[in-house]
Amino acid sequence: MEYYSGQINRLIEELSLLPGVGSKTAQRLAFHILGMPEENVERLSKAIIDAKKNVRYCKCCFTLTDSEICPICKNPARNHKQIMVVENTRDLAAYEKTKKYEGVYHVLHGAISPMLGIGPNDIKLKELMKRLEGDVDEVIIATNSSLEGETTAMYISKLIKPTGIKVTRIASGVPVGGDLEYIDEVTLLRALEGRAEL
Amino acid sequence: MEYYSGQINRLIEELSLLPGVGSKTAQRLAFHILGMPEENVERLSKAIIDAKKNVRYCKCCFTLTDSEICPICKNPARNHKQIMVVENTRDLAAYEKTKKYEGVYHVLHGAISPMLGIGPNDIKLKELMKRLEGDVDEVIIATNSSLEGETTAMYISKLIKPTGIKVTRIASGVPVGGDLEYIDEVTLLRALEGRAEL
Repeated sequence: MEYYSGQINRLIEELSLLPGVGSKTAQRLAFHILGMPEENVERLSKAIIDAKKNVRYCKCCFTLTDSEICPICKNPARNHKQIMVVENTRDLAAYEKTKKYEGVYHVLHGAISPMLGIGPNDIKLKELMKRLEGDVDEVIIATNSSLEGETTAMYISKLIKPTGIKVTRIASGVPVGGDLEYIDEVTLLRALEGRAEL
Repeated sequence: MEYYSGQINRLIEELSLLPGVGSKTAQRLAFHILGMPEENVERLSKAIIDAKKNVRYCKCCFTLTDSEICPICKNPARNHKQIMVVENTRDLAAYEKTKKYEGVYHVLHGAISPMLGIGPNDIKLKELMKRLEGDVDEVIIATNSSLEGETTAMYISKLIKPTGIKVTRIASGVPVGGDLEYIDEVTLLRALEGRAEL
């Protein structure tokens, strides 16, 4: 990369620190940015700085937001007695896109992973337990269907059960539109175990 | 994308304007940036602004650089009588990586394309002709082997020939390590036409 002048190199290096951006992609992005109108470049740079400065955790559900309390927690039309527990803000957005879920969320910011040394205290679990001291009917655990997600789901359900609050887990099975022959064995077995009468 | 708060959305939108970055990738990048330490975010933002502000065309060869004259044009050890014509700064960098070319460059910033309405006046061609008024032995045309690159090469060679300066074109053929069975017919024919005695 000594083939470009200093500031082009610096830009390429900074961009290549982003996830999924290798040195070739970083070069392509850098030259694209150099060719953009100055006001667009300033807007991009400002959007980066502004988001980093102003985005924080919602004081209630811990999703990333730019206000003290996020729009979902603020909304009186949502069912605040039903809490869906997700690993991160992107998972929350995925459920919001369905436009059918009317409860609120709790964002853990991670999942328990003994392999990576992430324990129950490293995710927003204490904060969830504190919320459950209020008036809550149901906790829906929507952590990922990975080893870490399942471990976290088990751990949380054990923690909540003594409180008497209903704990549910989103269903595991064949994705809609999925072709059986391409689906892994574990998912197929889960779908079989979770079969429902028609 | 109304599932995130305003400033997260703005960041995602700005990022998704970059080439090859769709909305999913933009989300991933945005959340990665939000999770980065503040000083790294500032470094990224500053690198973008600084590069845009300070990078300009070299007054001699028109490559992108942050000084008046680029390091290659400044270097007295290079052969300034041999000029390689390339489409953009990335192509220049590709040849620099070979570490074998000792001449200088001329960056066109594009190629002639009647389809896209890019004519000879839209690329740095006049600037090349002006350079040829000086003491030049050879012009090596290293535009891409695409329709536009070939058109540009033909156009330039016709323009230069009357001046008596030697004009050459980089060879077209089978890439080193390339497997014949996967190479397109046009390239195979070019390789045949360009065959050399052993």
